[in-house]
Amino acid sequence: MNRTNDRVFVFAAGESGLWRIDSIVNIVGPESLASAPRLDVTQVSPAAPAAGKLSWRLRGVTSNERYVTGAERRQLSDAQEPLGRRDATQAALIPIRKSDAWWKLAQDERREIFEEHSRHLRIGAKYLPAIARRLHHCRDLGTDEPFDFLTWFEYAPGDARAFDDLVAELRSTPEWSYMEREIDIRLVKEPPLG
Amino acid sequence: MNRTNDRVFVFAAGESGLWRIDSIVNIVGPESLASAPRLDVTQVSPAAPAAGKLSWRLRGVTSNERYVTGAERRQLSDAQEPLGRRDATQAALIPIRKSDAWWKLAQDERREIFEEHSRHLRIGAKYLPAIARRLHHCRDLGTDEPFDFLTWFEYAPGDARAFDDLVAELRSTPEWSYMEREIDIRLVKEPPLG
Repeated sequence: MNRTNDRVFVFAAGESGLWRIDSIVNIVGPESLASAPRLDVTQVSPAAPAAGKLSWRLRGVTSNERYVTGAERRQLSDAQEPLGRRDATQAALIPIRKSDAWWKLAQDERREIFEEHSRHLRIGAKYLPAIARRLHHCRDLGTDEPFDFLTWFEYAPGDARAFDDLVAELRSTPEWSYMEREIDIRLVKEPPLG
Repeated sequence: MNRTNDRVFVFAAGESGLWRIDSIVNIVGPESLASAPRLDVTQVSPAAPAAGKLSWRLRGVTSNERYVTGAERRQLSDAQEPLGRRDATQAALIPIRKSDAWWKLAQDERREIFEEHSRHLRIGAKYLPAIARRLHHCRDLGTDEPFDFLTWFEYAPGDARAFDDLVAELRSTPEWSYMEREIDIRLVKEPPLG
């Protein structure tokens, strides 16, 4: 068995973890994820996860950018803040799955819907530096995954309303018409007692 | 454990398989792959591969296109032939790994090197329909893989010289200056005796 790719992140919902799960809302698709009290976010997949105790477990891998141009990246990276900020005690995990129709499009067709029609990057940029994020890819993992992407967001409680605006804006774009599943999980950083 | 993604292909070098390994040549990088008499190409990863008998085992997943535009794809797909043609009794498996410098480039910068500077698609198109191919991605598998891509090519014996020209042309392009590893494995379709 090969070692785990060190860009893999694991999101495990169960009895333990730094993040308390506040809500799980099914936005698009046939079924939500099961409820659980806590979420554990780890970079290395445990060899033998305590499966009985977990409600669900999602994996994704950070990767090279697929649509951002060099010029766009230079603009964005000036404004981006890292994850793990002290005051960013709220988070969201949004697993999405896009349709086969999306994946069958050519690169320039996807880019056109993503940015020229949907302004995905420009919408996101409006909420910088308040909202920090990390994108994880699931579609090309060797295993059959229920989602294509897991996006993790962190922000301060005062920016929770801005985060709601951000996801509402994105959900109204042409890009979102390709969404087959979307689940919106909100979390609060809360070290477990005892 | 999740089911295997049904876009995963496994290339297992050992004692068995439809393809006899004719040569393994290290083109770029510190080390080649070990020699073996045969290669088995399968779509579903065996749950418990006979590891003791294998010389090596590589996996990759077919995926959406990363650089081809819609217009380019329409031109190419008219000329492309499928794998598995009766007279295509020779094959090549070329595992490559690109440098971190490549992966840190933005999408438009990679596309520019790939096609505008290196004419990767236009070089490939010259050899259609003789050379059929399938590209497998390894970089975003959940495991730590030695290569980023595995490309599988099939052609008739009379087109072996043309295939040599194709890889020589690609190796002289700016794109290839980002290559950190490349191994060129040639094979002959030869059902095992007995």
